[in-house]
Amino acid sequence: MSENKESLPASSRKSAVSRQALSSLVWKGNHLSMLDQRLLPETIVMLDLFTTEEVWDGIHAMKVRGAPAIGMAAAYGVVLGTTSYRGTDAAGWLEHVHAVCGHLATSRPTAVNLFWALDRMKKRAGELITEAEGGQIEDWNAGLECEAMAIQAEDEEVCRQIGIHALPLFEDGMGVLTHCNAGGLATAKYGTALAPMYLAQENGIHLKVFADETRPVLQGARLTAFELQQAGIDITLLCDNMAGMVMAKGWVQAVIVGTDRVAANGDVANKIGTYSLAVLAKAHGIPFYVASPLSTIDLKTATGADIPIEERPAEEVTESFGKRTAPQGIKVYNPAFDVTPHEYVTAIITEKGIVQAPFNENLTALFAD
Amino acid sequence: MSENKESLPASSRKSAVSRQALSSLVWKGNHLSMLDQRLLPETIVMLDLFTTEEVWDGIHAMKVRGAPAIGMAAAYGVVLGTTSYRGTDAAGWLEHVHAVCGHLATSRPTAVNLFWALDRMKKRAGELITEAEGGQIEDWNAGLECEAMAIQAEDEEVCRQIGIHALPLFEDGMGVLTHCNAGGLATAKYGTALAPMYLAQENGIHLKVFADETRPVLQGARLTAFELQQAGIDITLLCDNMAGMVMAKGWVQAVIVGTDRVAANGDVANKIGTYSLAVLAKAHGIPFYVASPLSTIDLKTATGADIPIEERPAEEVTESFGKRTAPQGIKVYNPAFDVTPHEYVTAIITEKGIVQAPFNENLTALFAD
Repeated sequence: MSENKESLPASSRKSAVSRQALSSLVWKGNHLSMLDQRLLPETIVMLDLFTTEEVWDGIHAMKVRGAPAIGMAAAYGVVLGTTSYRGTDAAGWLEHVHAVCGHLATSRPTAVNLFWALDRMKKRAGELITEAEGGQIEDWNAGLECEAMAIQAEDEEVCRQIGIHALPLFEDGMGVLTHCNAGGLATAKYGTALAPMYLAQENGIHLKVFADETRPVLQGARLTAFELQQAGIDITLLCDNMAGMVMAKGWVQAVIVGTDRVAANGDVANKIGTYSLAVLAKAHGIPFYVASPLSTIDLKTATGADIPIEERPAEEVTESFGKRTAPQGIKVYNPAFDVTPHEYVTAIITEKGIVQAPFNENLTALFAD
Repeated sequence: MSENKESLPASSRKSAVSRQALSSLVWKGNHLSMLDQRLLPETIVMLDLFTTEEVWDGIHAMKVRGAPAIGMAAAYGVVLGTTSYRGTDAAGWLEHVHAVCGHLATSRPTAVNLFWALDRMKKRAGELITEAEGGQIEDWNAGLECEAMAIQAEDEEVCRQIGIHALPLFEDGMGVLTHCNAGGLATAKYGTALAPMYLAQENGIHLKVFADETRPVLQGARLTAFELQQAGIDITLLCDNMAGMVMAKGWVQAVIVGTDRVAANGDVANKIGTYSLAVLAKAHGIPFYVASPLSTIDLKTATGADIPIEERPAEEVTESFGKRTAPQGIKVYNPAFDVTPHEYVTAIITEKGIVQAPFNENLTALFAD
């Protein structure tokens, strides 16, 4: 593993990357270039990973984060693992692919996209040896490389479609507020909630974006502010508790957030603080949009009440800035997510179009198409 | 200056202070004991200050904070300064008192309570030499000591009366949410927004208090959580963006906050985030109370629109805890306060009773009494 460290001073860093969004993962043919997101926003390091083990560590140590990005990284980890296979028979190769996938699956045991991507790679491996029974190991390896690249390309296209469908909602000069990081760093490119901002930029529409810092883990400050600044988009950072005042001042004409799960009735689970934002948006007559790929809409979950809310360690709140900021032994309530009831959701923006109420009917119809 | 450092481990610290609220200032007859609030919540240090210069430094370096506490500290600083006067004539003594006050006034040039307390000490010094024309320097010094103690006692009584008037609003077991620190540490005792919680405790009413951490400076985490924990009151710390979810869960039956200025129409300026909280409270049908001494109600300010809102440095948001958490050069909006329109205020709790809408009429009547 080697490091390409961006050592320019901050002031020249933006021009150095040509005001393009940084990619969290870039496939280089024989290795994976991975942005170390743990070091953001202070240091930009692209790690060159040549082995499955290095990718495993990248996922495990959270150098890469964001569900789609984790899945993509794992898929490339499988590709890197197949090159070390020294046998010539199809059965042995398939067994090796399964072993590599089994190992990568242990890197972050709760990430759904990780398993989804590994299952897809195993399935493809099986198809490859069936399709090309007399083929060469090299061909099967190349087939897996194509599959990994397809996963990444499809993710990028889903995000791009979300951005395209959102475009009619935005006008030049509009203020848009977002929360957490549902951005390009978490996906192949564009992100979900941030896709409209990138697509607006590509189409010459200038948005004035406000990003909540998003306590306790500060994804808004560390990641959203960073990637939009890198891309040259007009971005202002806020503490979460300033959103109400910014709305009252009339600076925001739309709120757009990502989501971890959308229930069949349109209830939305997302990063803690999303619900407060939705209530504030409604009180100020501001539309509240949720950007969601179809893969995040779960028709088997009837309502938000059925979505379990993970509680995280107190230390995220009491000592996340490298310094203890609350008394020892203090009780802390630290839910990672909250649920925004569908009546606060103006529309859900998917890669297949914009869905409005009644959500039960319209989400079902979306999947029936 | 000497330090009395509380070096007990956190687990035994609470019993060590007998579960009583810590005082930010304790007059010891010949010196002032000042809690170094900069070190909270991790370290409890009472500084023993024997000279005006040490008090000046205590105010200047923000070892003491909170408008009423700053005024009190300055008054005791005057008392400590008079003992160094070696003359015997009234005119020389009065001149010396004015010089001491003039010096203390330079410690924090924008703190209104500081000037108010120093003016009161100067006025009292003038009265003392008039009242007891043939008196001794010692008597005049003692008279100033009484005046400083009276300032502290009056502040404590104002806070206690706010707490007493608030008591009928609370029932045993109720959940109460507060923001920032309008507590005992900022005043002689009890605080304003926290007075009801202390008085409830004194009266055997158990409240379940939730404290917003209050970004960016974290007064809720560092001070409110600390002082209520010290006092043995049931306290849970939240990130600001969790308040909505806690309300939706039905855990909060009242919100109570302090204020920096109340306008004649009942609009309330307070720490940034107060307005968001007021909007959330209204959306959940939860009463929103403002605790305010009469001295903070400014009938000369017609509405909240006339209250200037200070913007603070970006670094409070981007590097407040010794670690940079946002990219270099990012735009930040960091207002110190916001204004909550009176229609969101259920009642203002003062030392003379509870005031409800119409605020213009009822606040004017309060001062006319």
